[in-house]
Amino acid sequence: MEKRLFTPGPLGVSMTTKEAMLRDVGSRDQEFISLVKNIRMDLIMIAGVDETDFTCIPLQGSGTFCIEAVLSTFVPREGKVLILENGAYGKRQAAICRVLGINYQISSFPEDSFIRGEDAKVLLERDGPFSMLSIVHCETSSGVINRIEEVGDVLKEFPETAYFVDAMSSFGAVPIDMKLCNMDVLVSSANKCIEGVPGFGFAICRRSLVAASKGNARSYCLDLVDQNEGLDKNGQFRFTPPTHAMLAFNQALTELHAEGGVNARSARYQSNRAILRQGMQSLGFQEFLSSEHTGYIITSYYFPKHPKFNFQTFYENLSKLGFVIYPGKVLDADCFRIGNIGNLHARDMQELLTNIETVLSKMCP
Amino acid sequence: MEKRLFTPGPLGVSMTTKEAMLRDVGSRDQEFISLVKNIRMDLIMIAGVDETDFTCIPLQGSGTFCIEAVLSTFVPREGKVLILENGAYGKRQAAICRVLGINYQISSFPEDSFIRGEDAKVLLERDGPFSMLSIVHCETSSGVINRIEEVGDVLKEFPETAYFVDAMSSFGAVPIDMKLCNMDVLVSSANKCIEGVPGFGFAICRRSLVAASKGNARSYCLDLVDQNEGLDKNGQFRFTPPTHAMLAFNQALTELHAEGGVNARSARYQSNRAILRQGMQSLGFQEFLSSEHTGYIITSYYFPKHPKFNFQTFYENLSKLGFVIYPGKVLDADCFRIGNIGNLHARDMQELLTNIETVLSKMCP
Ligand SMILES: Cc1ncc(COP(=O)(O)O)c(C=O)c1O
Ligand SMILES: Cc1ncc(COP(=O)(O)O)c(C=O)c1O
Repeated sequence: MEKRLFTPGPLGVSMTTKEAMLRDVGSRDQEFISLVKNIRMDLIMIAGVDETDFTCIPLQGSGTFCIEAVLSTFVPREGKVLILENGAYGKRQAAICRVLGINYQISSFPEDSFIRGEDAKVLLERDGPFSMLSIVHCETSSGVINRIEEVGDVLKEFPETAYFVDAMSSFGAVPIDMKLCNMDVLVSSANKCIEGVPGFGFAICRRSLVAASKGNARSYCLDLVDQNEGLDKNGQFRFTPPTHAMLAFNQALTELHAEGGVNARSARYQSNRAILRQGMQSLGFQEFLSSEHTGYIITSYYFPKHPKFNFQTFYENLSKLGFVIYPGKVLDADCFRIGNIGNLHARDMQELLTNIETVLSKMCP
Repeated sequence: MEKRLFTPGPLGVSMTTKEAMLRDVGSRDQEFISLVKNIRMDLIMIAGVDETDFTCIPLQGSGTFCIEAVLSTFVPREGKVLILENGAYGKRQAAICRVLGINYQISSFPEDSFIRGEDAKVLLERDGPFSMLSIVHCETSSGVINRIEEVGDVLKEFPETAYFVDAMSSFGAVPIDMKLCNMDVLVSSANKCIEGVPGFGFAICRRSLVAASKGNARSYCLDLVDQNEGLDKNGQFRFTPPTHAMLAFNQALTELHAEGGVNARSARYQSNRAILRQGMQSLGFQEFLSSEHTGYIITSYYFPKHPKFNFQTFYENLSKLGFVIYPGKVLDADCFRIGNIGNLHARDMQELLTNIETVLSKMCP
């Protein structure tokens, strides 16, 4: 049975995107080289910047590999990162810095509210200078959307600080203008809102930062300067690329544009989210975040208070019916999560709700 | 046009293997967890060892990511690696050590002959102790097969030295018995002789070495101890796995067994190689390696001496006809390479030869 995935990833993708993988291409063949070039150009355009000032660097592996590569490559050996976090993905960046021996300051904010520009300002003024400020756009552990434009505005007064945004789960779904946000580096991955299959991440980076970062990297593979050099020179990856995942991604981009681009995708996800919200509310579920702080990517729900509710059973029974949801990832509350990104449409959301009702009424009569 | 790939990778794989990717599976779903478990068990078995003493750790990214992860994880902070190299992939390991700040000694051997046990012995006795000895099995840059059994034998007298073999391009095609070879770590990847699609590598590791290596890693993502912990605990990857590539790999393993296992695959590749050898010889091409030193994975050919021969043109004309070959990678000679691994059979080899003849006779009349 083909199950539908209401998760933060891996996500479900269209059959046509998967069918694009029914071929083998050589990694040095002109066709593949052109395809990689087009993908890189397209992503730069979607980010609202241009090729003169920015480059897009795809990197094999999952999204976290790309996050580590950014920290490893763009923080100078004597530099220091300010990590503003309100969830698991922000905390993971601190763990990465710890292992890499990168000097960092982690400033923690409540999981249930967005981080604002003024939060950044206070810290930059009090504890700076920093070589980089890092923040997660959609903190997928809760679903909160941090105020990346406000933070970018504040950073205009701190030109020595590079601005890095983890837009893993928002890029392609939430319009992001890197220029407007004054952003230097953005990371996302193939299997999020562009709706490709997993296999690589990508960093969209300001060229001047790349040029200034040669020799910084604490890793051979996770070195974005070297990765970029190879791609810029002859269009080839340094090491075997995930050719099939790139073919799928190319098709996924075509389908994103056919749908109407990021705005149309944003509208579909928002409509998915609205259906979910209303349906879950009438089933008595309560959201972890208040309306002001939530996005439309993924929603955290408190476990119902019913004494017979058991998440593992709930999950498994839904999975048996073909609906895969996700465990929670906030620290302070017992939650589960439902994503509404990927190849999901109104009918999928409605069918999920019907099945949640069925499973719940059996479990908690 | 679907081109046929006569390369060291990405390789062509069967249509049924690609078709296994026409589904989306959740990374935490029981089905996927079982699939990953079976893949890990199967690879351990293929390597001639068992689960009590060994673990198989798949890692997202290309094969090089896995090589870096091995060096990063299994060489203690105060340790030292002895790298025996006779080609580009061996040299790359030294570059990795340099970036990671790992203490290493690189001992270089001629590109056109295999490295033997006694080569290792001399160095171990003279320059030891070493925490690890590293060697490439099939040095794909030339096609030479190093004597990994002999080196393993020698290492029996050096129990303090872990034995690491890069079997990227040989595993699945050349029978390897890790126990017989006294081997501690072997690395290969999805898109080599198991004939899956690219997206991950895997390290088969002695459990005692894994247990002794916590905290060694110089990277967060490329930490095989942490990766293994997650997989052993609940069967899940730490970060988003390449689900489609794993589905394909599972199918590829099924097809390997259906073909008759490693011995049958070895026979097919050897037969491909024999056809290639004879055909190329009658076309006047000369092999870089002598018979004694060559394997049956990939063959390096000298450029013909004809004044009109131009590799780029040769390559492109063959590619237009649907046959993708590969540039050379030895330092000391102008060569190109032809691989005979992947979904290639006698007819493919014959058709390649016919087309080489056509292209060559036009270019060098
Ligand atoms: C905001 C954010 N950052 C990082 C990651 C990690 O990505 P991956 O699991 O591909 O390594 C995720 C994954 O969901 C994410 O949502
Ligand atoms: C012997 C050997 N080692 C390492 C690699 C690197 O693997 P990847 O290109 O997947 O990073 C290769 C690739 O062909 C290889 O043949």
